[in-house]
Order: sequence, then structure tokens, then C-alpha cells
Amino acid sequence: MNEGSFQIPVTALRAMLGDVAGVVEARNTIPILSNVLISVGRTGVVVTGTDLDAWAERHHSLEAEAAFSFTVEAGLMARVAAKLPADGEALVKVADGKLTLSVGRSRFSMGTLPVDDFPSLPRGEFEAEFEMPAIYLAAAFDQVAHCASTEATRYYLNGVFVHAPNDGDLRFATTDGHRLARCAVARPDGAEALPDVIIPRKVVKLLLPLLGRHEGNVDVRISRKRVRFEIGSTTIDAKTIDGEFPDYTRVIPSSHTGKLTIAREDLAKAVARVATISTEKTRAVKLELESDLLVLSVSSPETGTAREEVPCGWPFTALTIGFNAKYLGEMLGHMSADTIEATFTDSAAPSLWRDSEAASTTFVLMPLRV
Amino acid sequence: MNEGSFQIPVTALRAMLGDVAGVVEARNTIPILSNVLISVGRTGVVVTGTDLDAWAERHHSLEAEAAFSFTVEAGLMARVAAKLPADGEALVKVADGKLTLSVGRSRFSMGTLPVDDFPSLPRGEFEAEFEMPAIYLAAAFDQVAHCASTEATRYYLNGVFVHAPNDGDLRFATTDGHRLARCAVARPDGAEALPDVIIPRKVVKLLLPLLGRHEGNVDVRISRKRVRFEIGSTTIDAKTIDGEFPDYTRVIPSSHTGKLTIAREDLAKAVARVATISTEKTRAVKLELESDLLVLSVSSPETGTAREEVPCGWPFTALTIGFNAKYLGEMLGHMSADTIEATFTDSAAPSLWRDSEAASTTFVLMPLRV
Repeated sequence: MNEGSFQIPVTALRAMLGDVAGVVEARNTIPILSNVLISVGRTGVVVTGTDLDAWAERHHSLEAEAAFSFTVEAGLMARVAAKLPADGEALVKVADGKLTLSVGRSRFSMGTLPVDDFPSLPRGEFEAEFEMPAIYLAAAFDQVAHCASTEATRYYLNGVFVHAPNDGDLRFATTDGHRLARCAVARPDGAEALPDVIIPRKVVKLLLPLLGRHEGNVDVRISRKRVRFEIGSTTIDAKTIDGEFPDYTRVIPSSHTGKLTIAREDLAKAVARVATISTEKTRAVKLELESDLLVLSVSSPETGTAREEVPCGWPFTALTIGFNAKYLGEMLGHMSADTIEATFTDSAAPSLWRDSEAASTTFVLMPLRV
Repeated sequence: MNEGSFQIPVTALRAMLGDVAGVVEARNTIPILSNVLISVGRTGVVVTGTDLDAWAERHHSLEAEAAFSFTVEAGLMARVAAKLPADGEALVKVADGKLTLSVGRSRFSMGTLPVDDFPSLPRGEFEAEFEMPAIYLAAAFDQVAHCASTEATRYYLNGVFVHAPNDGDLRFATTDGHRLARCAVARPDGAEALPDVIIPRKVVKLLLPLLGRHEGNVDVRISRKRVRFEIGSTTIDAKTIDGEFPDYTRVIPSSHTGKLTIAREDLAKAVARVATISTEKTRAVKLELESDLLVLSVSSPETGTAREEVPCGWPFTALTIGFNAKYLGEMLGHMSADTIEATFTDSAAPSLWRDSEAASTTFVLMPLRV
């Protein structure tokens, strides 16, 4: 009989559901995919959620009398857990296909679906395994993720490309054809044999809060078709994107005719201000560089014009170049130095942006005609 | 020539637009209604917005060389003002039908529309005029507003009914047919001749933040067709709803067979918890009262059941009654006593809820069959 019970603090139950719920899609044509699998064994309880492409699991140690498992609707269980008193101890009981959750004077009864219908995690060997500090992995994903494409037709750009070229770096890259981000970190031991992989945007979005909260190392396993991240008691196991990431290094300019230095926050605020004048469709901001002064301007036939002056370092011949204001603003938000630098060749060539020459992250912005 | 300029601190410009922008509808088929009118005169500048039913005006004292006025898109102007440096001083200049707004090294140019097209505020006499503390008026509107109907077919319930019966009270009432709220405050001098009026929900929503921020008295003028609130330097002038508010006092129960006393927060939390089990459409929560114990339960064919026990004061014969969980939760959120009371007659009769017998606000909830 698949029946039994266990006790768990409400905070632990919430944390488990919180880590796993993100992978479960809100609407599913297959009902079991709206559920989480809760398995109780000798070492504790494991909650699992999946969308068939990614699996999220979290373990919590506890003592249970017998091994048993069940599935319950993820959203409903998370909503109930969120409302329970935080200092409570929940008694979770399954009998006759019904789940009963009791805390103090509260009692909830919910339906379950057969455990056998829950999709099982594909198994297989990994080609590379390494450890790295969660904080470094979080920073790398965070800095590049916003440049990933969301266009379904370019599915091979819908994620973060991770590869280990021969120069000793571990590299993270994204592009949507209009902009590109690349972050390089020192290659951890064990990552030499890393196959090239594209990690889907959804998986990166699941990983970011988990990595941000975790102190210490993360265990990463990678094969061509699958990646697995062990972050404390939570594991994310996901299919990679089956496609070829383009040779993005060709787009990164290797020469330039002028280098701009400018205060990041002043530029970001000026971009945000001039962008207010533009309607959704005309997002171009014009940058005019001359004699250590940057003039930003936006002109919209419907609303009017906006113009900003920002002092900068540009002792070269005058240059006019246009960018998508949203891309420029998002990029500046992912940079961190007080004074940043950008290199340009002409108004039609890609521009390269970074915190400093030694920065681990590089951004490339394609110009817009203005 | 309708041209000129004035200087105004960015914070003052933001505050003016903030108070007035709420009345301007986001989408308008008549372009001038998306604009605010900005009039500069000898005593200062006035910003006006309208949706043809309500007018919002805010005055700011300043010295200008010449009187002039213009209209500009409310949303655009507010977005620009929001991004300007808070410690800046804006130079606002109109020439050749173009508005130029300059702050430091930022300059915005926006189109204007003819001032003559801007709808003018209807004039007319008021039948009653009185003053009352903003804090009392805010509390009265806040406590009753959530019970106003949003159904367009019952337009005469889409607002707060204000009247001054002969018992010396000033009363505020709302109902949507399922619940009712009434707040009574001492009638201010000057409100004796108050005609019955229904103040639209949108106007009450505009008033609430203005009243909440204002210290001191508010000047209120009321005629059958129009109300006018002067809140510091901001004025809201609005058409009332042209309809007959039903005799709501008939619905308020005057007798009962049992009075419940219960801890408000415990009840509110229990309602929130059992409500998590219900899907959007089945919102009924069942209350079973017996021997100083309240048992709340929700049953949903799709998801399951939830049950809560809350100790209470109920020394009467057992009673079972159902309520809409959302209405019950919203009402409890608008009450304030630690221990509240409710009176019941039977499971089909309206129930009456209040902080205490002496409370100024009374709620009536119609039961649901459970």
C-alpha cells in the first residue's frame, strides 16, 4: 500500500515547494505535469517537479516510518503552504489516494494522481564534472542571460552557450542577433573535456535565485544533451538545447578607431530620460561624440524630441552612432564599474562595451541607423 | 501670442502631475483628453486634467512674467518628470506651439494641442458647503469603497452614497447587492442641507491618496449634480452619478438571535487559508458555530477540502452559515478591533459585522447557500 505519513516544519515544506515550483508550468494539457512528486524514503523526503525538459528536486532530511510516495498539484500545495503559520509543524498523511495536511487547528485534504504516471528523470553518463563557487556561476549567468534571444524560430539562441576553449577559460555567451554578452571565468578542474552546450533560458532563470542564495560550491555535470546542477539540497537536471550556437567570436570587434570612457550612472540616467520620449516602436537613441562631450538624443514623430549632454572622454574625431535604448539601458544595468569604456570603429560597425579592459564580461551592441 | 516660460522645481512639477494624472484616462479617442492643461497666471501655475466627468486641478505658486497656457500629453509629461533629477529646477517654455522642458543638461521638446479645445469645468451653485478633517473623510471613504458595485448595469451602485439623515450624522454607504458597508460620522456644520449624492468609484479612488497625504481640513461642496473637494492646493470637481441609491437601511438587520465575538486576525488568517483550496468560481466558505467554537470549511470538487477551527464566543444553539470568502476577507481587512462581533438570525438572513456596538462602520454580508 502506498500510504504513510511524515512531519515537516512549515518553513521546510515552503522552501522545498518554492525551489521546485518554478519548473512546473502553470497550464498543462497533461494533468500529471501540474503535480509535484513527493517521495519519502529512509533518508528523508524529496520533492520533484518537471516540465519534461527540466527536473527540479529538493531533499529534506527527516525520519519516516515507511517509504511511500504521492503526487499533488504543485500550485495548490504551494498556495496552502504559503498561508500556513510559519512556526507550525505540518503532518502530511496519505491514505486511500487522499493527501491530508494538518497544522495545528488547520486541516487540508487534497486529491493525488498516480505516482506511476509521473515522468521519470532520464539517466545517462556525463562527460564533464566540476565544482565552482555558486557566486561566480550566478554572476556569469546573470550578466549574460538578458542578451539571449526569445524568438522561437531561433531556438539555438534561446539560452546561454557554455564552452571551454583551449585558452583555459570557461565561457558563457548569449546573443539575439542585435546584441551579445560574453563572460569568461577561470576554468575549474574537471571542465577540460566540457562539450559545448546551450542551457535554456528557463533553466537559467530557475538557477539564478538558487545560486544567489547558496553559499559555497556547486557541483556541475555536463554532457552534450544534459546538464545537472547540485546546489545544496536542490538539484536541477535539464535537457540542453539541441542546436548549434553560431561562432559568436567573429562578431566581437578586435580593433577600433576610438575608445570612449564615461561615468556609467550618468549615461544610464541620461539614456532612461531620453527614452521616455520614444514610443514603443521607435526605440533608437542617437549618440553624438565630439570633443569629450556625448550628446544623446531621441526624436519621435508622435511625441517630440529629447536631448541630453554627458561629459566623457572622447578626444577623437566626431562620431555619430545609434543604439536601441532598451538594449543600451539593460546592458548598463548589468555593468558595475563607476567609469566604463566602449570602443567604436564607425557608425555601422558593432561596438564593444566593458567595465574595463580587464573585465571578465564583454558586451557587443549592433548599431541602429539614426 | 500664447507664449512664455516659467521655472519650477522638479519635485513640484512631479507632485502636480501626480495629483492630476489619475483622472486622465490612458486611452482616449479624443486626443485632447490625453492632455493636461497648464495655465500660468499672476499667482502661479495650475495643472488641470479631466475625463469629462471629473476634473483634477493643482496649483503651485510662482512668479511668471506673462500669463499663458498650453496643453501637453499627460502620460508623456509625467514619464519625463519622473526621470528628471529630483533636485533639479525645470525651465518650461512654450513658443510656436512647442513645449521645451530643460533641466541642467537635459532638454525635452514636446508637441502641444490648442488650449481652446480643452474642455472647461462646468460652473454652478453648490447647495451645501462644509469643512471636515481629511483624516475622517479618508477613513469613511476607505472603509466603505470596497463594497461598491462594479457592474455597469447597476450604475447607481457604482459609487459611495453620501447623505445627511435627520439624526445628526453624515453617512457614507455602498453596496453591490451581496454586501453593504455604512460609515457614520458626526455631521459637520453646513452639511444640514446636503442633497443625497452618489460619488463615483473613480472619484473616490482619486480622493483617497490625496486625503491620506493631507493634514488638516478639507473643503467640501455638494450639489445634486456635482461635488467639489478642495484638499490643500489640489481640487477635485466631479459629476455625481445621476441615479437613485436604494433604501439600503432596510437591509441592515435590526434584530438577531445570536452574537458572535471572535479575534479578528485569527478569523482573517483562517479564512485566507481555507480559501486557498477553492478555485476562482466556488468561493463559498462554510461557518459552523457551536459551543464557543467556529469551524470554517471549504470544499471544492476539483481540489479538495480545507477545515479550520477558531475558538470564539458563541454560547447559542448551533448555526451553519456560508459566505463568499473574498467578501469576508476584504471586510475583515477593513475592520480594526482585535475582537470583533457579528450577529446572525439564521443561515438565510443577512449578517451584521462591526468592530464593536459603538463602531462608526457597519458591514452587512448576505449569506451563500452551503
